[in-house]
Amino acid sequence: MKNKKEINAAIIIIGNEVLSGRTKDLNTSTLSIWLNSLGIFVKEVRIIPDVEKTIIDTLNELRGKFNYVFTTGGIGPTHDDITAESVSKAFKLEYGFHKEAFSILKKYYDTGEFNEGRQKMAKMPTSANLILNPTSGAPGFYVENVFCLPGVPSILKSMIGGLNNLLVGGDPILSKTINLRTYESEIAASLTEVQNNNNEVEIGSYPFFRQGKLGVSIVLRSIDKNKIETCNSQILDFVNKKNIEIVELD
Amino acid sequence: MKNKKEINAAIIIIGNEVLSGRTKDLNTSTLSIWLNSLGIFVKEVRIIPDVEKTIIDTLNELRGKFNYVFTTGGIGPTHDDITAESVSKAFKLEYGFHKEAFSILKKYYDTGEFNEGRQKMAKMPTSANLILNPTSGAPGFYVENVFCLPGVPSILKSMIGGLNNLLVGGDPILSKTINLRTYESEIAASLTEVQNNNNEVEIGSYPFFRQGKLGVSIVLRSIDKNKIETCNSQILDFVNKKNIEIVELD
Repeated sequence: MKNKKEINAAIIIIGNEVLSGRTKDLNTSTLSIWLNSLGIFVKEVRIIPDVEKTIIDTLNELRGKFNYVFTTGGIGPTHDDITAESVSKAFKLEYGFHKEAFSILKKYYDTGEFNEGRQKMAKMPTSANLILNPTSGAPGFYVENVFCLPGVPSILKSMIGGLNNLLVGGDPILSKTINLRTYESEIAASLTEVQNNNNEVEIGSYPFFRQGKLGVSIVLRSIDKNKIETCNSQILDFVNKKNIEIVELD
Repeated sequence: MKNKKEINAAIIIIGNEVLSGRTKDLNTSTLSIWLNSLGIFVKEVRIIPDVEKTIIDTLNELRGKFNYVFTTGGIGPTHDDITAESVSKAFKLEYGFHKEAFSILKKYYDTGEFNEGRQKMAKMPTSANLILNPTSGAPGFYVENVFCLPGVPSILKSMIGGLNNLLVGGDPILSKTINLRTYESEIAASLTEVQNNNNEVEIGSYPFFRQGKLGVSIVLRSIDKNKIETCNSQILDFVNKKNIEIVELD
């Protein structure tokens, strides 16, 4: 897709629980759909363990390579939550109690309940900016172009809206899906021709199985609505000629 | 976790559909659980787009860094399926029709149905070894330590068993989960102490929400069953002292 002012992002999923297969990653999908709507393309995702050196190296590589980097996970109260300290080290910033975060958490918990574990959630780069958490108090934070969010999907979801006005995106990425009752191999040659004629539209082809039947979803993505429509017409042309059924999926 | 003969792996998920958020990645979980059972630790996952240079660079970086690399996606019949050609280029191997793969596919399809798109699925490094596909004919393949599998989760699942005797793992990774009706912050200090006393067990702490109630799953992972048991006892000690309820999850 040719987009001269493309704004891009990478996501770093931090957590042994995802690498072990115990937990399926849902945050990539949430973040990607949200970022697309702001005109930011996710170009790479890395899932890495709770290992300080790996977190620091990955952060330092990706924050130089992409406009934005989002991390999820590792900002809770337990010993395996080491994201905030690792970010401090990556940026060579002081790690300690963040005044505003400490004050938010102190207010959030009843007197006497603001114990050591909960206080740890106020530790981060002391100069970081906060990302407010409407669900469970403990804020995320950002430093320059690196945004640190929690790993729990429902909490992450509740926090990202607060960043909408902060992130500067390009043109939003539009998409259109055509679901066909066919096999990929039946349409491969025609689809290649359409792709060659429409190089500003990214055409994806994805087989699906639904209700015991095979099919193919064709996904057109571009920042230009007209170009998607042109591409769509060319696809419908060969679909009609080949007598392929178009199906509606939920 | 200290494991002197640790055998590790990386996974490369190839596909714009995962990066766009349209499709949730299920293959990481399948591959990780399976590899753990063979004594192979997944240390990193990368989700990357269908871009040749990115695929080649990622492959060449990770195949030198890990014992095994698994790729998923991009081996179908359409224009956006470029994994097999990219792997050929990464290894500087001839890309073309693989005799055995061509023969398998020719037998799989009825006469006259083995069209250009389907034939493309027999194109790969001509010297590659095949990974048989009991579900839909088209084989995967491997070159040295790089194993290329399809992106469709059900097909991938049906193919990995065929690799069990080929992969050389270390000691299998055992795990034990304790689910507690508590908050992470209530147990954070005690858990840190247990982790410090048991450095050959990896202790993970993961909050959960079930049936409207909060809880924490403590996951113990090690290659040594006795060390998991020792660690488990120490956790149950503080759980009892703190009067925390243990819960059974499905």
